[in-house]
Amino acid sequence: MTKNQMEITARVLIDCDDAKGLVYQFSKVFFEKNLNIDSNHEFVDKESGRFFMRSVVSGVFDPQVLLEKLKDVASIYSNVKVILPKAKKIVILATKESHALGDLLIRHADGELDADIECVISNHDVLERLVRRFDIPFVYIPAEEMEREEHEAYVMRFVNEFKFDYIVLAKYMRILTPTFVNAYPLKIINIHHSFLPAFIGANPYKQAHERGVKIIGATAHFVTDDLDEGPIIAQDVIGVNHRMGWKEMQKAGRDVEKIVLSRALSYVLNDRVFVYGNKTVVF
Amino acid sequence: MTKNQMEITARVLIDCDDAKGLVYQFSKVFFEKNLNIDSNHEFVDKESGRFFMRSVVSGVFDPQVLLEKLKDVASIYSNVKVILPKAKKIVILATKESHALGDLLIRHADGELDADIECVISNHDVLERLVRRFDIPFVYIPAEEMEREEHEAYVMRFVNEFKFDYIVLAKYMRILTPTFVNAYPLKIINIHHSFLPAFIGANPYKQAHERGVKIIGATAHFVTDDLDEGPIIAQDVIGVNHRMGWKEMQKAGRDVEKIVLSRALSYVLNDRVFVYGNKTVVF
Amino acid sequence: MTKNQMEITARVLIDCDDAKGLVYQFSKVFFEKNLNIDSNHEFVDKESGRFFMRSVVSGVFDPQVLLEKLKDVASIYSNVKVILPKAKKIVILATKESHALGDLLIRHADGELDADIECVISNHDVLERLVRRFDIPFVYIPAEEMEREEHEAYVMRFVNEFKFDYIVLAKYMRILTPTFVNAYPLKIINIHHSFLPAFIGANPYKQAHERGVKIIGATAHFVTDDLDEGPIIAQDVIGVNHRMGWKEMQKAGRDVEKIVLSRALSYVLNDRVFVYGNKTVVF
Amino acid sequence: MTKNQMEITARVLIDCDDAKGLVYQFSKVFFEKNLNIDSNHEFVDKESGRFFMRSVVSGVFDPQVLLEKLKDVASIYSNVKVILPKAKKIVILATKESHALGDLLIRHADGELDADIECVISNHDVLERLVRRFDIPFVYIPAEEMEREEHEAYVMRFVNEFKFDYIVLAKYMRILTPTFVNAYPLKIINIHHSFLPAFIGANPYKQAHERGVKIIGATAHFVTDDLDEGPIIAQDVIGVNHRMGWKEMQKAGRDVEKIVLSRALSYVLNDRVFVYGNKTVVF
Repeated sequence: MTKNQMEITARVLIDCDDAKGLVYQFSKVFFEKNLNIDSNHEFVDKESGRFFMRSVVSGVFDPQVLLEKLKDVASIYSNVKVILPKAKKIVILATKESHALGDLLIRHADGELDADIECVISNHDVLERLVRRFDIPFVYIPAEEMEREEHEAYVMRFVNEFKFDYIVLAKYMRILTPTFVNAYPLKIINIHHSFLPAFIGANPYKQAHERGVKIIGATAHFVTDDLDEGPIIAQDVIGVNHRMGWKEMQKAGRDVEKIVLSRALSYVLNDRVFVYGNKTVVF
Repeated sequence: MTKNQMEITARVLIDCDDAKGLVYQFSKVFFEKNLNIDSNHEFVDKESGRFFMRSVVSGVFDPQVLLEKLKDVASIYSNVKVILPKAKKIVILATKESHALGDLLIRHADGELDADIECVISNHDVLERLVRRFDIPFVYIPAEEMEREEHEAYVMRFVNEFKFDYIVLAKYMRILTPTFVNAYPLKIINIHHSFLPAFIGANPYKQAHERGVKIIGATAHFVTDDLDEGPIIAQDVIGVNHRMGWKEMQKAGRDVEKIVLSRALSYVLNDRVFVYGNKTVVF
Repeated sequence: MTKNQMEITARVLIDCDDAKGLVYQFSKVFFEKNLNIDSNHEFVDKESGRFFMRSVVSGVFDPQVLLEKLKDVASIYSNVKVILPKAKKIVILATKESHALGDLLIRHADGELDADIECVISNHDVLERLVRRFDIPFVYIPAEEMEREEHEAYVMRFVNEFKFDYIVLAKYMRILTPTFVNAYPLKIINIHHSFLPAFIGANPYKQAHERGVKIIGATAHFVTDDLDEGPIIAQDVIGVNHRMGWKEMQKAGRDVEKIVLSRALSYVLNDRVFVYGNKTVVF
Repeated sequence: MTKNQMEITARVLIDCDDAKGLVYQFSKVFFEKNLNIDSNHEFVDKESGRFFMRSVVSGVFDPQVLLEKLKDVASIYSNVKVILPKAKKIVILATKESHALGDLLIRHADGELDADIECVISNHDVLERLVRRFDIPFVYIPAEEMEREEHEAYVMRFVNEFKFDYIVLAKYMRILTPTFVNAYPLKIINIHHSFLPAFIGANPYKQAHERGVKIIGATAHFVTDDLDEGPIIAQDVIGVNHRMGWKEMQKAGRDVEKIVLSRALSYVLNDRVFVYGNKTVVF
């Protein structure tokens, strides 16, 4: 058996204008290539008339040829991807809090992350020791006495040294400028420490405490120009009560933050997320 | 336009041995019949090698012809159904508690149930007043001084007077004999007042209280020969604490019971549930 | 044994400025009156320096005398109540949706509500049939061709005919004027169909759908001048996904709404809720 | 001001037979010692007639004298403790899985654990590298070719070298003998990978998958002689579906396991847990 004849698995992601017969036509391509469909999900957004499909297929095939065949079927306003499963590469930005970063580091060390952590960049050095414990490069770029743009330029320079798939903001407590955000469209994933759109902006736990809510939450989302307004990937919540000051809420919230970030990341790293408009389809 | 040319919608349910090309072949039938796929779900259980598909299709077509075409594709060990959406008919069995029954009655009165309640049968008369408020037939079949088999024979006689799709046990606190259960295979839906398989059997809240659990739950399942062992359709839970005696747990649990039963029923009535072995696929 | 010597149970609610020895001094009163403490909760809000206590006491005592003794202990800026447990009276305002109202009606019919429903008032007549099924007065006050103030004046006139403890807005889809709200301070309980403070205002489900959230919720709160800004009593949430349009979200949300309203109402009717500033303490 | 006059804070835990006037008498002691009550919780289990109280008090006092005063009040069958808040010491037993252990290590490194990890002991060496990253002693005690009793004797020898408050089983996949368990009564905390009492015993995820449940969970409990039957401290759950094989369930379950273990540990380390019979009171 030659190398070309080895069985491989691929994730097929299709996103195009809806039309009659799409499932038939795409699955026909799979059939003609003699592929197995290991899993298959479709969704049509009726409002926008958009069709989404994610298939995991296996067989003996050339991914490039498969891609071309599928593109022939899809309309011109379409995105078709054939992705071979392998660990993505991520760069993590953090500030001082260790819980979300630590959760990623433990998963990474355990081989559970579906990604390689290329580097951790921080505007403070408090997390350096933790990151170095895991033999991962840590870059400390202090922001003091610097304009926002200047600091970001430094961060971008380091970020760009890595061939990464995603930038993960694991409690990076600085607001990114449009320049930064637009340089990496749909490549930046943030964990916001509230149940968005509640408590946009600074110190959501303090806001939550002042408002007297009975539940707090966390939101993982792609970062876009609008602060805390990007497409939501995952959310979760936890109950709170009058006995908890905002610091207790913050402490309780950390568990939700790290779990939601890891969950969202797992969706993204496994190519289960489509973005359309300001929303996500998560298969 | 004649009546035959009117656009209709149907739910197609397919359950057959897995094979290469099934999605292609079934969607080909839809395509050739010029049908729109409004939604589509597939799942393959790798262990048993079983393929499940639920499609909602719309267009101008003869359901019987569509069924035959699809059956031609499916293997001989297959179940193929083409179901036109319409309110199913249910018969409810209850005993004394009103919460689960009441929830169904309110939804029914509101047109939200996706089913017609043909009749409520009870071994007590306490719920008669409530049922009559909704102008629904109530049949009181006391069980006192009767053998279980004798009582059940009466219940079956009344049940059988109705052309029903499902029997719903809305806190029917009597154990059904195999005779009864086997007369209506996968037609009986029960709400069990625990998070199965925890606390099988009598008074699960008392058991939960004694065990000192911190969460209680409810389980909606199809009824099979094995008490509390049938395929699970839906489950949910609620937190409890040391301050709650078993009656407080029971009170808190009632909300979970009624919501879980209604949710499971909604799945079933919308033909979203497949049963295989002792499990369900819920699309 | 004379009537005066009969054992009674009372809920003692104390809310005063914090000071050293308060638990000692209040429990001393209970001890000297030879009362049993069936349950006891205390909380001090450190920020505002406010002390809250709820005790359920039983014994042979004169509630009025107990109240005076406790007031002697509390500082002058204090609220002390001795409440004998009995069903409160409520007036319900609703519009067209039946789920929250229906849940209350079923609980009421079952004796599970801890309240008597005096009357249901609506600006539409669609719910009349449902309410009458339960032999509860229904008042239809149409709002068409009327100024808001005029309509409210009619509602208030009917509301005031009843000696009620609380007004419950069971999906009353009209905004109340300050005149109405201020006439019944901390007497009006609303269920808002979102996880406040997310999606304040009109059609929160549409807002939630547009924002692409993954969780929706409901909030029960006291009504104050500020729309959707009153003290929160209870909240809960349910997961949603991309397949759900806003109407499916609305349908799923109804179960959360009715459960949260009933839960909040149960807290309030059992005198378990203190309000301070814009927050609640729920014991 | 001398050292004796410094203000200190203590946790007072009282557990005794219920009697009239207990709150009065204990709070009188606090009052006479001129102590502030920072928080106060009481609970009476009516069934067993047992009274539980946890007070956090602050002021200038001698803890030993306070203890004696409180003991004078409590009945002879009582436990009274006056605990000065400081980091407890724990020994962790683990096997191969890193998620629960890793979560504790990250919290520990962050100063969020309220405990010092004295040592990690494992019957495998796979976790050694992770533990050493955090500069914490790791003891590898292989169990191969050894009787259970012999292996345990080794473990106990190492455990006993540390002055610990609690032994934490962070996915220690070996069953402990009564000899071990009885040597450390109410000192061993386990995380069980199911929603107990469902799926007692080996591979609960496989059991859960076979049973077709729609929710899985985790349970943190004190270890007693009866396998998986000790007093439950905390539980939580997560939804699953038909698409998940048991390994996917296991993966999803790990997040619940680690969060539940950390939560339970936080309760225990902050002296918020009482055990009575086979239950816990968690204030």
